[in-house]
Order: sequence, then structure tokens, then C-alpha cells
Amino acid sequence: MAMAGATMHHRTADFRALYSKVLADLRVFIGTRNDVILFTSSGTGAMEASVCNLTSPGDRVLVISAGKFGERWEALARTFGCQVDTIRAPYGQAVSPMQVKEKLTPAHSVVYMQATESSTGVRHDVASIARLLKGTDTLLVVDAITGLGTTNFNVDGWGIDVIIGGSQKAVMIPPGLAYCSVSERAWRRMEITRNPRYYFDLRKERKNGAKGESSYTPSTVLVAGLSAALDYLREQGGGDLTAGRDLLIANAEKAALMTRCAAQSLGLRLFAEDSPASALTAIASPKGMDSGKIVKLFRERFGAVIANGQGEMKGQLFRIAHLGFYDYLDTISMIGALEHVLIEAGVEIELGAGLCSAQQAFTVLEQAAA
Amino acid sequence: MAMAGATMHHRTADFRALYSKVLADLRVFIGTRNDVILFTSSGTGAMEASVCNLTSPGDRVLVISAGKFGERWEALARTFGCQVDTIRAPYGQAVSPMQVKEKLTPAHSVVYMQATESSTGVRHDVASIARLLKGTDTLLVVDAITGLGTTNFNVDGWGIDVIIGGSQKAVMIPPGLAYCSVSERAWRRMEITRNPRYYFDLRKERKNGAKGESSYTPSTVLVAGLSAALDYLREQGGGDLTAGRDLLIANAEKAALMTRCAAQSLGLRLFAEDSPASALTAIASPKGMDSGKIVKLFRERFGAVIANGQGEMKGQLFRIAHLGFYDYLDTISMIGALEHVLIEAGVEIELGAGLCSAQQAFTVLEQAAA
Repeated sequence: MAMAGATMHHRTADFRALYSKVLADLRVFIGTRNDVILFTSSGTGAMEASVCNLTSPGDRVLVISAGKFGERWEALARTFGCQVDTIRAPYGQAVSPMQVKEKLTPAHSVVYMQATESSTGVRHDVASIARLLKGTDTLLVVDAITGLGTTNFNVDGWGIDVIIGGSQKAVMIPPGLAYCSVSERAWRRMEITRNPRYYFDLRKERKNGAKGESSYTPSTVLVAGLSAALDYLREQGGGDLTAGRDLLIANAEKAALMTRCAAQSLGLRLFAEDSPASALTAIASPKGMDSGKIVKLFRERFGAVIANGQGEMKGQLFRIAHLGFYDYLDTISMIGALEHVLIEAGVEIELGAGLCSAQQAFTVLEQAAA
Repeated sequence: MAMAGATMHHRTADFRALYSKVLADLRVFIGTRNDVILFTSSGTGAMEASVCNLTSPGDRVLVISAGKFGERWEALARTFGCQVDTIRAPYGQAVSPMQVKEKLTPAHSVVYMQATESSTGVRHDVASIARLLKGTDTLLVVDAITGLGTTNFNVDGWGIDVIIGGSQKAVMIPPGLAYCSVSERAWRRMEITRNPRYYFDLRKERKNGAKGESSYTPSTVLVAGLSAALDYLREQGGGDLTAGRDLLIANAEKAALMTRCAAQSLGLRLFAEDSPASALTAIASPKGMDSGKIVKLFRERFGAVIANGQGEMKGQLFRIAHLGFYDYLDTISMIGALEHVLIEAGVEIELGAGLCSAQQAFTVLEQAAA
């Protein structure tokens, strides 16, 4: 409704006030004192901005890659002429801080990583990796497109130089906006880097953002939608946006735990067993079965959308999101439907076992919180 | 309403069908057999794509500049390491084909220009400039962000290699999408160019577009809105999108002529006297008056938004759009309001003179069409 009503022109006092308000709210949502920058693009646009603004051709960078989005960092850094060293975890596993410690050298100008790798459902230990960079000149850039609003970050305390989010994830509005916060030392780095940047020029956006404007025509309707979504979170937090954001994270953690418990009690294997994210749960397809069958049955029988694996992982796993509005009711109903889908696909399970396990997980969490 | 109802995920058969339909409709709207590419960005994103995909560092390019958007081509081409030759017209004037003929050499790999320069209200003679490039290896890139849907183009006949549009202009939906068509020789050029491109990689988008997908998460709601807008134009054209597009252009031409006649009969000077665009009319502020006063009175007295000048032109002119839905009623009411605003600002005019002149212009056009 906020989007449908957003008919203002972007070069007006009304829109400048809205834009400034959204930038200020995003700061609180991210939990940082750093400047926040907004782009009209998918999240990949802010990833590109983190490469073209922070590097020069020939720079050596370290990419922590645990899936398709880690591979995107590699492709982006190579596109802009960087020498890329990659620490690669097999799909379904996380890169450990120990591996980073072994590989990291002062020659690395930037470390690029995902907080949560949504192609595999893995969570990275951002805090420990950030600790390795303390006191060095290496910048830390974290793609938290599915991490923000599902995972706790201490952005300034840990020293995350750039953290990236997207509008269609935990902030619950349609795709089309990317945002990131940028640290003082990242701004200083931009004074010496030489890769070309125009649409994704962070410094230009910072300058215009201070006046409540974007450099180029922004997606006005999505900015209005984002404002309403952040107001909703503030309301959920009893007038405190940070509290609302923390409830959102706790909600994702709860839905993720319920889903993991249910999957395991149904005899399914978690694709990201050792370090699962709260943003989504990736579940390995039962042996010998193409996961597309499960995705298809979900849609046909229940009108519900779950995701298949990406790229080479297609057919091997299915992914269930816990971002934003998904709550207890959505999670329980999805698990109930999953049981029917599995039986229809020919998997032997005990009907109700997943539901019961999810309810138990919920009860434990409720008791712990009480 | 179409946007509010667009809740589909972008990696589904439903969305692929919608995306393919929009790309096919845009081809008809642009009037080309070339591939059409869509980006989630402002129009500037497609301008950047036309530079980073079609040039290598050191390439010599020719920019035709008649205002702020021509200057954007210069800045973009320099950002990507091009040697930029510029033919510059004073603000309010167009660059003539003769000037281009004198300056153009076989060393120019690309000519960048605006069809309509919306900072000054000037129209360029795209057909004549395109003719100069026939039989040469120089590509022609036309920013028609305000040109498409307000101006006639024979894209393939004239040989426009890339023509660029934006969602918030004549196609009447909110900002956030850019689109362009790309010729075969432009695709071939991309095989040898070496500037970095990732988010705005045209070839990647072409490959994915053929499958009904975008490379990165698209602004799904705006794609749904664009589809509905193009359906509306098709309906206006009695089931023929080309006919609907031509009505849209005729409507802009009519509103522009009415506005120009009204302004002149009120003793105002057209900022783009010799070669005015139909996309918008730029009117010079009465002598000694800051045009901001007129913009402000419009907003305060009538809740209407007209635009001030941009950059150095701020205060010198005001701009009235004729894009998309603006029709006879909007144009007449705006002229009526302008007369009151001018009187309130202390300009001596004859009340009703602008309205009468606009009505006469309308009558002449109606009779000519009959």
C-alpha cells in the first residue's frame, strides 16, 4: 500500500525527507554508525560497488567462497582486474577462520565473504574472521544480503568495513534496492583506488545521500516500501527499531531450528550440517531423488514455493527460506506439507514426526526465553 | 494495481513468461528487430552499459552534448578510459548534423548522443546524424530515455545501434528499470572490447533474457507494472501496440505544441527555441526572476510539480513534461495555472491569452488530422 501511494517526484522536499529517513533507519537496522548507501539495483550491484570502489587493477584480494555467491565475488574481483586468492569450502560446508588465518597475508587489500551463503544454507563465522583482520590494512567486505535480519552482527565492534543487504530479503519488500554501510577506512581506501565506477560510485552517493538525494533517479516506490517495512519493524519492537530487528532475527532462528529438527527427524540430511544459517535451510534430496520433484510437488499440491539448488547443485537439494514474515504458522504448515510431499514422492517417513519435532523445538525455545 | 499483485518469485515459470512478454513488447514499443535488454537500475545504468560494453580503455569516442545528460556521456566515457571528443552546443541549442559531419572521423569507435536532452528541452536530429554513420564502423548510441514514446524513431532503418529508455518516462510506471535495444554490430563489437562489466554485462543479459530470465534478481513489481503499461498502450491502439505507441507520441507532440504556443503568447521565451523536444517544454524564466519562484508557486497554489533547471541552469528556466499520461486536460489546466502563477509572481500578462493560444493550436492539429 505504501508503494502504491508513492507518487512523489524524487527531486522534491517530500522525497528528500523520506530518503533521509530510510538511510537513517537502515543505519539502525544494520546497527552501525557508518554511512549507509542505497542503490537501485539487485544486491549484486552493491557487491560490484564493493569491488570497483575498493580495488585497483592488480590488487590482491582474498575471497572466502562456500557456494555460488562466493563464486560471484571471485568473478567480480577478476572482472575488475584483481589477483584473486580463494579459500574454497565444498558445497555445504563453511570456510573456517583457521583456514583464513593460514592464507591471509598483508598483501591482501580486501577480504570478500558471505555471512550466509544462500546457495548452500551455510553460515560463516564473521566475528572470528573479522578478528583476524584487526590491526591490519585489509578491509573486510561482507555480503549479508540474506544475513541482515536473520543473523546477529556487531558491525562496528567487529570492524566490518562494508556490509551489504537487499530489499527483498529480511526487510520483506520486493527486489530492486541494494544497500550497504561503509566504514571510514573504506572511504579512505577510495581516495587511492583506480577501478572505473560511475553508476555504483559510493562517494558520489555519500555526498548526495547527505542531502537526501540519490545520484540517479531512484526506485521511488521501493524506497517508500522500505520505509514502511522499517516502520513495521519499529512497531514490532514497541517503538524501537533495534528491538524490532532483534525480534526478526530471533524469529528466523526459531523457524530455522524448527525446520532443521523436523528434517532430521524425517530422516533427511541437512545440506549444511555443521554450520547452518538461520536465513534458510538447505536439505539434501533423499538418495536417488531429484529435488526438483519435491519443489514441483510443493507448488502443485500446496501452491507453495521452495527453491531448488543453484547451478551444479540443482537436483541435489531444496531450500526453505526463513526471512522476514515467515513465522511459526508458516513454518509448521510448510513442515506438514513437506511430509505429504515426501510420501507422495515415495519416501518412507512417519507422518507427523517432523511436526512433532518442530513443536518440541519451539517449546524448548519458548521455555528458554521465559 | 499490477505492481501490488506481483508477488511471484523471479525464478518461476510464471515470471519467466512475464519477463519474455515484456522483452517482446519492448521490441515492438522501440520498433526494432534487435534484442532488447532490461536492467534493474535507473536509465543511467543502461548508459553505463553502453560505455563499458562497447569500449576499451584508450578508445576515441565522439560525444554530442547539449546539456547535463550530454555531459553525463562525457563523464561516463572518461570513467572508462576513453579519449573523448565533444561537440558542445550552448544550453538551449542543439548540435547540428553539419557540426557532427565536420568533427566525425573513422577513429571514433562510438558516437554517444541524446535524442531529447531533457535538461534543456532540446531535440536532436537523430536521423541525419545516423545517416552520417552509414557505411562506417562507428556505432551510434542514443539516450532516448525521454525520447522513446515522445519522438518517432526508425531504429533499424536509421541504424541506431543502441537506443535507451527508462521505465518512469513515456511508459508511465515508477522509476527503477532501464531498457535498451542492441544491434548485431554492437554485439560483435563486444567480442573485442575490454572494459570491465559485470552487473551491466549486456551479453550475459542477452543469454539469460532468451530464457526469460535476468542475470540478477530483477525488480519484479516494476516488470509487472511495465507489462501492464504496455498492455494499456496496446489497448489504446485497438490491440496494436505500435499504433498505441504512435498515439502516445502524437499526444506528446500535441501537448508540447499547445504549451509552446501558450508560452509564446504570454510573452515567455522558449529555452529551446530552434529545436524543441516533444518530451518536455523548457521555458526561460521572465527577466530578473528566479524560476524557483514559479516552481514553488505551482506547488503551493496548485499542488502541481514542474521542474526547475538542473545544475548551472537552476533558476533560469522551468520545465513542463509531456510524457505518457499527460493529455489535453492536463495541458490546458497547467497553462491556466501558469497564468495565475505568473501574475502572482509579478509578471504582466493577459489572463487567458495562453489558454486561447493553446486551444487554437489544438484545433489546428485536430483539423489537420481530420
